[in-house]
Amino acid sequence: MNFYSRKLIKPQDMNAHGTLFGGTVLSWIDEEAAIFVSCQLGKGNLVTKFMSEIDFVSSATLGDIIEIGMETVKFGKSSITVRCVVRNKFSKEVIIKIDRIVFVHVDEEGRPSPHNIEEPANK
Amino acid sequence: MNFYSRKLIKPQDMNAHGTLFGGTVLSWIDEEAAIFVSCQLGKGNLVTKFMSEIDFVSSATLGDIIEIGMETVKFGKSSITVRCVVRNKFSKEVIIKIDRIVFVHVDEEGRPSPHNIEEPANK
Amino acid sequence: MNFYSRKLIKPQDMNAHGTLFGGTVLSWIDEEAAIFVSCQLGKGNLVTKFMSEIDFVSSATLGDIIEIGMETVKFGKSSITVRCVVRNKFSKEVIIKIDRIVFVHVDEEGRPSPHNIEEPANK
Amino acid sequence: MNFYSRKLIKPQDMNAHGTLFGGTVLSWIDEEAAIFVSCQLGKGNLVTKFMSEIDFVSSATLGDIIEIGMETVKFGKSSITVRCVVRNKFSKEVIIKIDRIVFVHVDEEGRPSPHNIEEPANK
Amino acid sequence: MNFYSRKLIKPQDMNAHGTLFGGTVLSWIDEEAAIFVSCQLGKGNLVTKFMSEIDFVSSATLGDIIEIGMETVKFGKSSITVRCVVRNKFSKEVIIKIDRIVFVHVDEEGRPSPHNIEEPANK
Amino acid sequence: MNFYSRKLIKPQDMNAHGTLFGGTVLSWIDEEAAIFVSCQLGKGNLVTKFMSEIDFVSSATLGDIIEIGMETVKFGKSSITVRCVVRNKFSKEVIIKIDRIVFVHVDEEGRPSPHNIEEPANK
Repeated sequence: MNFYSRKLIKPQDMNAHGTLFGGTVLSWIDEEAAIFVSCQLGKGNLVTKFMSEIDFVSSATLGDIIEIGMETVKFGKSSITVRCVVRNKFSKEVIIKIDRIVFVHVDEEGRPSPHNIEEPANK
Repeated sequence: MNFYSRKLIKPQDMNAHGTLFGGTVLSWIDEEAAIFVSCQLGKGNLVTKFMSEIDFVSSATLGDIIEIGMETVKFGKSSITVRCVVRNKFSKEVIIKIDRIVFVHVDEEGRPSPHNIEEPANK
Repeated sequence: MNFYSRKLIKPQDMNAHGTLFGGTVLSWIDEEAAIFVSCQLGKGNLVTKFMSEIDFVSSATLGDIIEIGMETVKFGKSSITVRCVVRNKFSKEVIIKIDRIVFVHVDEEGRPSPHNIEEPANK
Repeated sequence: MNFYSRKLIKPQDMNAHGTLFGGTVLSWIDEEAAIFVSCQLGKGNLVTKFMSEIDFVSSATLGDIIEIGMETVKFGKSSITVRCVVRNKFSKEVIIKIDRIVFVHVDEEGRPSPHNIEEPANK
Repeated sequence: MNFYSRKLIKPQDMNAHGTLFGGTVLSWIDEEAAIFVSCQLGKGNLVTKFMSEIDFVSSATLGDIIEIGMETVKFGKSSITVRCVVRNKFSKEVIIKIDRIVFVHVDEEGRPSPHNIEEPANK
Repeated sequence: MNFYSRKLIKPQDMNAHGTLFGGTVLSWIDEEAAIFVSCQLGKGNLVTKFMSEIDFVSSATLGDIIEIGMETVKFGKSSITVRCVVRNKFSKEVIIKIDRIVFVHVDEEGRPSPHNIEEPANK
């Protein structure tokens, strides 16, 4: 699994308890996964269809740096499935794990459409 | 299931395809669920521990009004599990469904701690 | 008066004194009122025309849950007037009260236009 | 009346109809008024207590520049009252008018407290 | 140099060290400069082309009021160059200085295009 | 130069002309540079002191993916200097270039303080 984007936890990312707001992380993951699958396929027009169970393993605090890792786990005709781990950049402690996030390639009317890519670009 | 909070889809909630950004909805759900469980227990200090599979059933577009429904499905000693449906307020079309979101009541050090509540407040 | 949407006060909603930023609440009220009148009329294309006096009765702090109540007070041919109370969900302490918020139904050029609805939907 | 702060209308400031979101303007006004009264008194610890009727005279659109004018209209022992006009920078068309916004100087417990200033600084 | 827009430092403008986030100030400067040059030329369609060296002279903290000053330093056929100083409103301490920010007037395809203005409007 | 974080251009990142808002990119760069230097030194407490000239080479549009590259160019006793390139992920077209961004390691009072690191971690 490669780790690409990093985030610095700032005040606006916190919940009222002084830890990283879960909704913020989910929002970062959804954007990062969309970017990753666009890079694998070399094209856009991809929509999130499904996420498997989400474990909120640990939290993070103000000033922490986290990194978001992505890996292709299944490559369908019009879909692509990725695995995601969010962890603390320094301690490597896992924050959130999602085993499968499924994206579907759609045409201009939003219907599933073959992406015509043989294999992921791994970049 | 009761539907409480409503959201109006504004430009800042959109993805680049002109539909509702998935990460924004997940962020709304996490906040709404935290509010709902606080209301059930009459107290705060609750952290998200787990979400079951997430189905992105349909999308929404600029100007749509959506509503977020929550329902308690399990009531443990230090945890509470809720079910969530996000749907279009007018068409009632389901946008996202999550069967189980588990929150845990924690003490000041963040360790699980009994919430000492007999039954949910249903409000 | 029914109370629908709830908000959890997060760091980004605060002013520099450590209390809820007044502008944030006004912004929540304007959005919530727009949603409420859309639901009463079953249609969009409504613009805020007027707000009566605003009392900032009390404030709220980080982690508080507030709820926003709305009620139709007048139902014109092309307008609809609502009353709003924002209060603390737990203590019921009133935070802000506005007696009249007037919305006007407009056509595509933004001119007032009859909404052709006999009575509010109360939902 | 002096016009100080200017804002450029960006996509994130819009409502779903393609015009400036009313809640955004109210939020800008509240912040600008707080800044103005701090400058008049040369000190902070001021909270919004009251706004008189708000006329939403006209709207604005993407790319417009607006300017926010403020003027002291009453100067009490622990309070200060200002008048506000928001208008289009180029056309001078008025967007929103509020005749009285009352701020109160508070001590550390949030109770009204004399500000001990003889006259506004006019800057 | 005239100082126009003012900003109140709020929690969402802070970095993790409890001081004003540099990126936020740069973002404010870019918007303010775009507004200033639009006012000088009486028209829009201007894009940032260049910023000279940026000195982060000092910082600011929660609750501080800052003001952003702009001044035209060069007036070309299709470009305009401005100088910027951001300072603390009360202490006058300089926070950031940029000697030259160059904007270019562009046509609808984004190509440089004469702005046909003889001299800046100084407003 | 390594490229780490990627961003997807969303509606809230746009200016009024329908292209990427310059201030948003500067804000992304400042955060990314802070993250990069924290990773090089294995510690925080770093403040931005200086940016050399900024070339806005080209722009980007809604839905584009950009990537931000960083590289250490000078390693002082209490400072570290990095070079930054922002480019389009697919076309590799450069969007913004900054040759030197200087960060200084500070103690708790904000004074320059040796970071005691021999060489950058290159990660």
